[in-house]
Amino acid sequence: MLKSPHLLGIKDLDEESIQLIVKTAKEFKEVLNRPIKKVPSLRDVTIANVFFENSTRTRLSFELAEKRLSADTINFSASGSSVKKGETLLDTVNNILAMKVDMLVMRHASPGAPHYLSKHIKANIVNAGDGTHEHPTQALLDTFSLQEKLGDLAGKNIAIIGDILHSRVALSNIYALKKQGANVRLCGPSTLIPKHIQSLGVEVSHDVQSTLQWCDAANVLRIQLERQQIKYFPSLREYALTFGINRKMLEELPKEIVLMHPGPINRGVELSSDAADSPHSIILDQVENGVAVRMAVLYLLAQRQ
Amino acid sequence: MLKSPHLLGIKDLDEESIQLIVKTAKEFKEVLNRPIKKVPSLRDVTIANVFFENSTRTRLSFELAEKRLSADTINFSASGSSVKKGETLLDTVNNILAMKVDMLVMRHASPGAPHYLSKHIKANIVNAGDGTHEHPTQALLDTFSLQEKLGDLAGKNIAIIGDILHSRVALSNIYALKKQGANVRLCGPSTLIPKHIQSLGVEVSHDVQSTLQWCDAANVLRIQLERQQIKYFPSLREYALTFGINRKMLEELPKEIVLMHPGPINRGVELSSDAADSPHSIILDQVENGVAVRMAVLYLLAQRQ
Amino acid sequence: MLKSPHLLGIKDLDEESIQLIVKTAKEFKEVLNRPIKKVPSLRDVTIANVFFENSTRTRLSFELAEKRLSADTINFSASGSSVKKGETLLDTVNNILAMKVDMLVMRHASPGAPHYLSKHIKANIVNAGDGTHEHPTQALLDTFSLQEKLGDLAGKNIAIIGDILHSRVALSNIYALKKQGANVRLCGPSTLIPKHIQSLGVEVSHDVQSTLQWCDAANVLRIQLERQQIKYFPSLREYALTFGINRKMLEELPKEIVLMHPGPINRGVELSSDAADSPHSIILDQVENGVAVRMAVLYLLAQRQ
Repeated sequence: MLKSPHLLGIKDLDEESIQLIVKTAKEFKEVLNRPIKKVPSLRDVTIANVFFENSTRTRLSFELAEKRLSADTINFSASGSSVKKGETLLDTVNNILAMKVDMLVMRHASPGAPHYLSKHIKANIVNAGDGTHEHPTQALLDTFSLQEKLGDLAGKNIAIIGDILHSRVALSNIYALKKQGANVRLCGPSTLIPKHIQSLGVEVSHDVQSTLQWCDAANVLRIQLERQQIKYFPSLREYALTFGINRKMLEELPKEIVLMHPGPINRGVELSSDAADSPHSIILDQVENGVAVRMAVLYLLAQRQ
Repeated sequence: MLKSPHLLGIKDLDEESIQLIVKTAKEFKEVLNRPIKKVPSLRDVTIANVFFENSTRTRLSFELAEKRLSADTINFSASGSSVKKGETLLDTVNNILAMKVDMLVMRHASPGAPHYLSKHIKANIVNAGDGTHEHPTQALLDTFSLQEKLGDLAGKNIAIIGDILHSRVALSNIYALKKQGANVRLCGPSTLIPKHIQSLGVEVSHDVQSTLQWCDAANVLRIQLERQQIKYFPSLREYALTFGINRKMLEELPKEIVLMHPGPINRGVELSSDAADSPHSIILDQVENGVAVRMAVLYLLAQRQ
Repeated sequence: MLKSPHLLGIKDLDEESIQLIVKTAKEFKEVLNRPIKKVPSLRDVTIANVFFENSTRTRLSFELAEKRLSADTINFSASGSSVKKGETLLDTVNNILAMKVDMLVMRHASPGAPHYLSKHIKANIVNAGDGTHEHPTQALLDTFSLQEKLGDLAGKNIAIIGDILHSRVALSNIYALKKQGANVRLCGPSTLIPKHIQSLGVEVSHDVQSTLQWCDAANVLRIQLERQQIKYFPSLREYALTFGINRKMLEELPKEIVLMHPGPINRGVELSSDAADSPHSIILDQVENGVAVRMAVLYLLAQRQ
C-alpha cells in the first residue's frame, strides 16, 4: 500500500512505492492488451480532472485510465470557469469536492499548488503537472518504460537532454532515477540547465555526442517554446545543430541505446524524424505505458481513502 | 407529481411542487452519502446540457446529478458551435432534440429564452439560469439548505444581501421564500436594488447591521463584476466597508444566524474569509445539496414525459 | 461486410457498401425509436473523436451514435492541444492511438488529411469532414433520408442548390447520387459552382425556378459565410432574391418535392422560414437519421478491425 494518500511529486515518494506502482502498472498493461480492457476496480469512485493549464496527452491518458477502471469522471478546465471570476483555488476545489468527488487529478501553472491543497482537503490528489516543478506520473511511466528495456535501473546510465530549466519532466525523472540508483547526466546548453540542480547528485555535460556514448538511455526533452521568457542562446537552429539527435548518431554508437521523449516532439529540432521513428525509440511505448501507470496510481491511491 | 413538464422558474411553481422537490432531494441526499451513489432511475433517458453562457459549478452539478441517475448525457457549449454561424436558438435546439434527446438543461444570456423554447418543443426543459431573470434550481437548493437548518420557513426572516439588480439568484429566491411564507428583506446600496422589486412583497434596507440583527438567515450574493455595465457607486472598497460581512459582526449578534452564498465568493468584498469559513456558513452544504436537488428535479420531470 | 476498414469518402465507396450502410442504419433507426435506445454492439471498443475544426451537430451526432452503441469515447479538440505546440498530425494521432484507441472519427481543415493518415495507422478512420473535400456520413444520411421518401434513387432527379464551391456536402452527395443512378443538377450563381465539377456527370443551372420544377428533391446548401475568402457576387441579399426558396415557390410546383438542408440554416437567405418549416422539409429527419447512419458506419467498420 502507498504511504501517502496523494501523489504530489517523486521527491517525497519512497522507492518501495515507485516499484509498487510500476509492478501494478505492469498488471494493468496486461489488462489493456486483452479484448476486454475494462475492470470494475473504481466503480463508485468519482474523479474530477481539474486542468487549470491546457493539456492534451496527459488529460486524455488520465481520462482513459479512469474509464478503464470504471470510475465516474467530471472534467473541469479553467477556461470559462469561476477561476476567471476571481475565486480562490481552494474555494474552487472545495466546491468540486462538496459534490461528493473522491479523487482530484490536477494540473496547475503554480509550482506547489497540489501540495498546498493537500493540506486543506480530504480527497486524494494526483499532481498532473505543477508549473515547472514536478510531473510525477510522467517520471513513473518513464521508469516503467526504462525497466521494460533495461531491467533494474541501479547502476544504469540515463541521460536527460535538452531544456532542463523549464522542465517538470526533468525534475521528476531525476528524483525517480536517483532513488533507483541510476547515474543521471543532464546535457544541454548552459542557459537551459539551472546551476543549483547539481546538488541533486547529477552530472552536467554540454556535449551531446559524448553523452550518447556514455548512456544506456537518453530521455530527450522538448524545447518548450511556449515556456521561454528569455531569448534562446543558441537559437533554435543552432540548438538543432548542436544538440539535435539524428538516426546516424544513434547508429554509430558502440552500443544500442534507448531513445525516449515525453512529447510533443518538435521534429527537426531536438530529434530528427529518422531518430524519432527509429527502432531505438520507445516514444509510443511511453504513451501506452502512461495509461497503465495512471491506472495503477489511481487504483493504489483509492485504497488509501 | 409536478404540474409542469418544465422547470422554467420559481415564479410559476406552486408551493406544493417546491416541497415535493425538496422532499425528493432529501431522499437523494441520503443516496449520495452511501458508498454506492448511483441509482438507475434515469437509465435510457438522454439529457443535453446546453450552455450558451459559461458556467462551472452549475454545469458540473447538473452533470453529476445526471451521472448519479444513470442518464446518458451530451454537452453543448456555445463556443465553437453553430450559434456562431447565425443559427436561430430554436433551430439549434430542434437539431439537438432530433437526435432523440429527452431533456434539456439550458443556460442562456437572454431572460425568457427557456420559456420561449417551452412553447415550441416537446422535451422537458430545466432552466439553469436565463440572464438576470431566474435560476430556479439555485433557489430550490437554497430552500433545501435553509429547511435543513431552520425547518418550515413560514414566518422566518430571510435577508438577501448585495447585488440584487444583476442577480437571478435573488429573484428566484424571493419567489421561493414568499411562496413559503417567509419574510424577505433585501439589503444593499440603492444602486443595486431595482425600485420595482418591492412590488413582490419584500422589505428593503440599506443597513447591513440591522438587517443581520433582524434575520434568521442571510443569503449574501456575489458582487458580479462581470455583469456590471455601469460604474459602481459605491466602489468595491466602499462596498466592502459598508456591506461586507465579517465574523466579528456575526459573533456579536444576539442570536445565531445562518450564512449562505451561491458562489463564487469574492473573499474580502461581500464576505471576509473568516465569515465564509465560520460555523455560521453553510456554503458548502449548499453545493452538496445542489446535486441532490438537481437529481430530484430531473427525476420528477422525467415522470412528466 | 464493408470492403475498406475506413470511411474516407464516397468517391471510393462502392454502391453495395452504400446500400449496406443504409440498410443497417434503418435497423438502428428502429432501435432509436424504442424506449431502450442502447445496444451493446461496440462494448469494449474505444473511439476517439478528434476534431481539428469546430463542429456542433456532427460531433454531437457521432457522440450519441457511439453512446447508443455502448462504445467508450474520448474527445479531442484542437483548441488547447499539442497541435498548437507544433506537433505533426501523425504524431498527434499516433499518440492517441497508443492509448489503445480502436477507431478514429476525425474532422480536419485540410482536404485529404484522413486519407493520408489511413496509410500510416491501423485504427479505423471515419472522415467527419476534411476541408471542402468530402463529408461522407452527411451524404449517407442524405441518401437514407431520400430513400425513405423516394425509394430507389435510380432515375430520380436531385438538385443541389447553393454554394457548391465551398461545400464538402455537395461533393460527397454528387458521388453518392451518381453511384445510385440518380440525375444530379447543381444550381447556384456561377461564382459558386466550380467549372471542373461537370466532369462528374452533373448538369449545371443558374435558374432556381426551373430547377425546382425539374427535381424530385432539392438539397439546399448553406451559404457558408465563414468559408468565403472572396466577396460574393451577388451579395447575400441578391442571393436571397435570386436563389432563396420560399414556401410559395414550393406550393406552386406541379408536383410535391422533398426539401433538404444539411444545417445550420441561414433563415431568410437560402431558405425562408416558411419553406424550412413546411411539410416539404425533411430537415429534422435528416438529423435524426444522422445518428442511425453513424451508428451503422461505426458498427460495420468495427467488423473490419
